[in-house]
Amino acid sequence: MIVGVLGGGQLARMLALAGYPLGLEFIFLCPDRDACAVPLGEHLQADFDDESALISLAERADVVTYEFENVPLKSVEFLAGRVPVHPSPQALATAQDRLREKRLFREMGIPTPAFAPVDSLAELQQAVAEIGLPAVLKTRCMGYDGKGQALLRHPDDLLPAWESLHGVPAIVEAFIRFEREVSIIAVRDPAGKTMFYPLSENTHRDGILRLSLSRPGDPMQAQAEAHAQRLLDDLDYVGILALEFFQMNEALLANEFAPRVHNSGHWTIEGDETSQFENHLRAVLGLPLGTPTPVGVAAMVNFISMLPSHTEVLALPQVHLHAYGKSPKPGRKVGHATVRTDDARRLEQLVTPLLVLAEAADAE
Amino acid sequence: MIVGVLGGGQLARMLALAGYPLGLEFIFLCPDRDACAVPLGEHLQADFDDESALISLAERADVVTYEFENVPLKSVEFLAGRVPVHPSPQALATAQDRLREKRLFREMGIPTPAFAPVDSLAELQQAVAEIGLPAVLKTRCMGYDGKGQALLRHPDDLLPAWESLHGVPAIVEAFIRFEREVSIIAVRDPAGKTMFYPLSENTHRDGILRLSLSRPGDPMQAQAEAHAQRLLDDLDYVGILALEFFQMNEALLANEFAPRVHNSGHWTIEGDETSQFENHLRAVLGLPLGTPTPVGVAAMVNFISMLPSHTEVLALPQVHLHAYGKSPKPGRKVGHATVRTDDARRLEQLVTPLLVLAEAADAE
Repeated sequence: MIVGVLGGGQLARMLALAGYPLGLEFIFLCPDRDACAVPLGEHLQADFDDESALISLAERADVVTYEFENVPLKSVEFLAGRVPVHPSPQALATAQDRLREKRLFREMGIPTPAFAPVDSLAELQQAVAEIGLPAVLKTRCMGYDGKGQALLRHPDDLLPAWESLHGVPAIVEAFIRFEREVSIIAVRDPAGKTMFYPLSENTHRDGILRLSLSRPGDPMQAQAEAHAQRLLDDLDYVGILALEFFQMNEALLANEFAPRVHNSGHWTIEGDETSQFENHLRAVLGLPLGTPTPVGVAAMVNFISMLPSHTEVLALPQVHLHAYGKSPKPGRKVGHATVRTDDARRLEQLVTPLLVLAEAADAE
Repeated sequence: MIVGVLGGGQLARMLALAGYPLGLEFIFLCPDRDACAVPLGEHLQADFDDESALISLAERADVVTYEFENVPLKSVEFLAGRVPVHPSPQALATAQDRLREKRLFREMGIPTPAFAPVDSLAELQQAVAEIGLPAVLKTRCMGYDGKGQALLRHPDDLLPAWESLHGVPAIVEAFIRFEREVSIIAVRDPAGKTMFYPLSENTHRDGILRLSLSRPGDPMQAQAEAHAQRLLDDLDYVGILALEFFQMNEALLANEFAPRVHNSGHWTIEGDETSQFENHLRAVLGLPLGTPTPVGVAAMVNFISMLPSHTEVLALPQVHLHAYGKSPKPGRKVGHATVRTDDARRLEQLVTPLLVLAEAADAE
């Protein structure tokens, strides 16, 4: 069977690495000649809205999926008329628009930070008067890794923040002084069977994920699952979905969801019986899902800007390197490493030297 | 870094799948256009003794390795004059010749079944008079999966067995009524650091491996390690080596070794912290070795002739499918599956339905 993927980055690459053992083949549609998934399958080098490339992908692939949510919705809708596409265009449309996403959370009874749509400076001023400061102004669409966001601390921040968005539709949200950030990776198959991975506890810096810890047995697991379940069922979702939360006291406030495999689930490659990548493929192909049973505990560290030396990383005990084959660039995710252990008390000791290497490489 | 591989079968394919996360790229030299590793790297389609292809491989690869021991020795020697090649031509030459191999075992003090070289019917008769019956007549070179072997039960079997070999150099060995077959997977780096995986307990039928169980804590572990250590050091070996034994009472008799990743080590992908494939690559590239710590216990079942249906395999709990992307053919290894569990008492229960599926597919 042939899986078509819109995008050719590290998520597409890891999907392919999980898919070959299942006997799958891959076609990547993406404009970048040097995209890091390209060595692992066939490359349709074209823009995402290139109709002849989309037709070719639809004709040859048994199923199409995508590795990032900023792929054009129209392209995904076009494909969905010709070939099974998972997750659905409806799920993608919701994830692409922060306002639509937050409204769906609200409809589903999933708590969120206070929010309001903003299409003018006057609306921003009005919304901030209600929500209070600090708050965060975000573009409704096309944001990722903290891009397209401005923190509002003082009333004076409103005008420059609004101007920095150049008039695109926006949303303002209450700034949450969270105790921690967690995400849940869930998978749903075409028959509606759903499974949940243990929570990930996530640390961001400069808007970029730095560290995820697997949290089997976390006290917030049931609450996260209940929220994700409602979302998955409402969207009649197929594939892996990641739902990110802020935790305050004993409550989880939904921040956003990603209709795809997710960075905070990379630890599942070693720290779970079935990785998020394999389960995404199983789901979109209608194959039985693999049980997301944790295998010990795991910590994942992102390598940002630059990889540390192979020798230094691989000399660490119980480390699993994932180099993406991308050239170094400030702020770019170029790889990650996971440590896994059956002894939860050792996790911090194992991950600390990895964090030190990651920080040093990013600072160079 | 670019790894050149002689061969493009499932072992090359699994090397590549382990190598991409290390940021490696692959070139496969093999004559078969449809070899199953081909989608995972660049393909130099040529015979193994094609000098211009060998030169091209040597010029482009940072290191060369091989996935089977029947690659021409001359080609490996030719490459070794131009690019680092691991394991060495000397290790390959020994593994290619059952007589040289058994003599090395004897020199190293590693017990073996009684054996004698056979280059004529008279020598065969003389050897059998000393060794006794039953015995096994084997070609010295080019045997695999039980091919090129004849079992001798009665004196009348000698003439037809000898004639079936068409006069090629042979060896006769005592037939061992073993209690079990075990193998040890070992890895050695260029500085001489050696690590050992837990023993594999193996079941063959019709000369083909069917089932391997990981055996952490096996009472024969120390003896197997001591034998393998002498062999690795004598050969100044670099990479993964598999050493197969027959067990009788409390003794291990060496049967043969493979200078490569090995079918009885496939369970290490899920059942060990570092797979044999990753550690082979780490060793041949001079990178730090990964600790071969078992992760629970594992059982691997080979799929021979034909794969069972994906749906049936993936519906089993805790199963990991490895489809090689090869077309079905009687007696061909087309895939394997591994089950892994932290509860050793559950292993038999998990593996039984997998064996049933494998048997049914092979019988079709």
